[in-house]
Amino acid sequence: MKAVSCVQGDLTVVDLPDPRPGPGQLVLDVRRCGICGSDLHAKDHADELTDVMAAVDYGDFMRGDTPVVLGHEFCGEVVERGRGAAKEFATGTTVVSFPLVRADGAVHLTGLSPKAPGAYAERVVVEGAMTFVVPNGLSLDIAALTEPMAVALHAVRRSDVGKRDVAVVVGCGPVGLAVICLLSAIGVSTIIASDFSPGRRALASRCGAHVVVDPAVDSPFDHLARQKGVLTSAPALYELGMGSMEKLRRVPGWQHLYRAADKFGAAGPKRPVIFECVGVPGMLDGVVAAAPLSALVVVVGVCMGEDRLRPAMAISKEVDMRFAFGYTPLEFRDTLHMLAEGKVDAAPLVTGTVGLDGVVDAFAALGDPETHAKILIDPRETSSEVRLTAAEAR
Amino acid sequence: MKAVSCVQGDLTVVDLPDPRPGPGQLVLDVRRCGICGSDLHAKDHADELTDVMAAVDYGDFMRGDTPVVLGHEFCGEVVERGRGAAKEFATGTTVVSFPLVRADGAVHLTGLSPKAPGAYAERVVVEGAMTFVVPNGLSLDIAALTEPMAVALHAVRRSDVGKRDVAVVVGCGPVGLAVICLLSAIGVSTIIASDFSPGRRALASRCGAHVVVDPAVDSPFDHLARQKGVLTSAPALYELGMGSMEKLRRVPGWQHLYRAADKFGAAGPKRPVIFECVGVPGMLDGVVAAAPLSALVVVVGVCMGEDRLRPAMAISKEVDMRFAFGYTPLEFRDTLHMLAEGKVDAAPLVTGTVGLDGVVDAFAALGDPETHAKILIDPRETSSEVRLTAAEAR
Repeated sequence: MKAVSCVQGDLTVVDLPDPRPGPGQLVLDVRRCGICGSDLHAKDHADELTDVMAAVDYGDFMRGDTPVVLGHEFCGEVVERGRGAAKEFATGTTVVSFPLVRADGAVHLTGLSPKAPGAYAERVVVEGAMTFVVPNGLSLDIAALTEPMAVALHAVRRSDVGKRDVAVVVGCGPVGLAVICLLSAIGVSTIIASDFSPGRRALASRCGAHVVVDPAVDSPFDHLARQKGVLTSAPALYELGMGSMEKLRRVPGWQHLYRAADKFGAAGPKRPVIFECVGVPGMLDGVVAAAPLSALVVVVGVCMGEDRLRPAMAISKEVDMRFAFGYTPLEFRDTLHMLAEGKVDAAPLVTGTVGLDGVVDAFAALGDPETHAKILIDPRETSSEVRLTAAEAR
Repeated sequence: MKAVSCVQGDLTVVDLPDPRPGPGQLVLDVRRCGICGSDLHAKDHADELTDVMAAVDYGDFMRGDTPVVLGHEFCGEVVERGRGAAKEFATGTTVVSFPLVRADGAVHLTGLSPKAPGAYAERVVVEGAMTFVVPNGLSLDIAALTEPMAVALHAVRRSDVGKRDVAVVVGCGPVGLAVICLLSAIGVSTIIASDFSPGRRALASRCGAHVVVDPAVDSPFDHLARQKGVLTSAPALYELGMGSMEKLRRVPGWQHLYRAADKFGAAGPKRPVIFECVGVPGMLDGVVAAAPLSALVVVVGVCMGEDRLRPAMAISKEVDMRFAFGYTPLEFRDTLHMLAEGKVDAAPLVTGTVGLDGVVDAFAALGDPETHAKILIDPRETSSEVRLTAAEAR
């Protein structure tokens, strides 16, 4: 089969033997595979991830000098079923799969390990237990977005954000846009998005952001600070605390009225939610410095190398910083069904399609935020040029 | 009245006019005032806190060149009641007070602002609304610990730690010891504490730590890693996720069994809780690098200046980092009652007492972790030497 091999930062179309399914596994005919930001990282910086991966005991993560087939955001059609794989996966069934696969007696990250080749290829091996039938009618393009949208669902769930809350999304790359789609889907009342690129800001609006700002001329945190219940000033917090107690003291038997006390705001200010989706050095400290009191920062953008932080600043604001990674199998399934039932609209993310021969060009094209967000590989596409998705399809 | 004034890092005993209460305020005869780690910071590094305080809009925080009376951990007896202050605060009543006070039309941090002199003094002004009568029988020494113990209660509540959880406390200074006391009080099943000092480790045991380690020869995180349900390895997590799905798939109608799925562990590994109570540069990154997967790190130790962090490491482990600061008025009151009802034993913390003339010596003595944890100022004490608390009193 035809596949794209990555070694020492080079992507090359190669011919590999057709894969065969082990027990419980399936072989899929890949129909779409998204190019992920972590593929861009992994292509050039696999070795920098070594110490991170060593800290989580994953010795089989890809390295620069070992060829690997990337691709973990895919949908495909079942072409072969291994022994014991469920009968629901009949030949020709369109499926998506949580990108983990058994190999050599262990479980590996599909498309990020030489032991588990990914879907930048005509065929890919998946586990039946981790595979889900794509409900009737969901397009191949959108089905392939299950994985990145699951990342966003997980990040949003980890934020505990509610409908009445205010959320800021810093950075409108594919991850930020996916987060905006999910926040919009659950009905968060105010979504403020920020990106330097006009193209990305336009996409953010289409994904459901209510306020979209260019951080070069405006701050999303100024918009956040103007929201009801959001506090930026310690003296205002002190006033709130003391005012609450002064009111409370006037209520006979106040000591037993803890719920009333909470209503008076003694438990502290509203907790606004910020999604950091940029992932470059300086972002964490910048977000903390600009954030209001009690901010909850969900870190979704992956920043390589060392970053800096002023802990005293984070303490004085009582910041929560939740680092988000991946999703659970059930979140993956939930995401597929949200997409299939039209509860979340991810169509604006797909900006282009490309054949296996055009993957190198696609990586280059993704450097331009004005034109592209998510490019999908279609192994049946023969042209080696990135084809822009028609506006009416989005 | 006699008070200790702090300016440009110098502590001097001075004579100040006796304070008078404003409306709703009380004047207390200070009986005990603890020396806090943040007093040590503030004495020498007030100006370094300026940018932090500017970010939270608190322009009235102390500065190096302006004299301030420190002291925010105190108990005292009511000597004068301002207009409108509640009658429960009769003259002679022993009370503790949340250290916030109104002055010049705003609310200020008592003992950390020139506008709100603290309790390194014979008398201090407090707000009636923030003041709580010390229940009968609680000693002055322990009553004065309400404030630091409330810091620990707040940190522990912010961790959402439960009885069946495992907690690691890194650093057994007064804050770490207070956290251990609270974890012990709520019955956390396994408390692992770590400190380089043998004296502090002995105190940690007396406060309720089950496992106490010297990080020079042993790692608290190795002990944590051996606890049931704690995961340190990504491949083990992948196995858990896939194993869960394989089991789940065998259950007819599994798609509707989301609770069962959670029981199978599909929601992820156990979330161990780590309290960072050291607050020196490098600690955050060190804790994240050593922590298991899904660790929840509560940052209680205040680290001044810039610190470093590897975000990709924190992301790959899905770490939660919750920065904790202060407490609510109701947490302060809860702490007082937990102390008075014997639900938490804070006696081991108090290692010495000193008069106002001995505060300089006490600051020096606190540099030696073998001898001291918490030194209390007793303004009626005339000796200028730090008097060690008798072992039988602890």
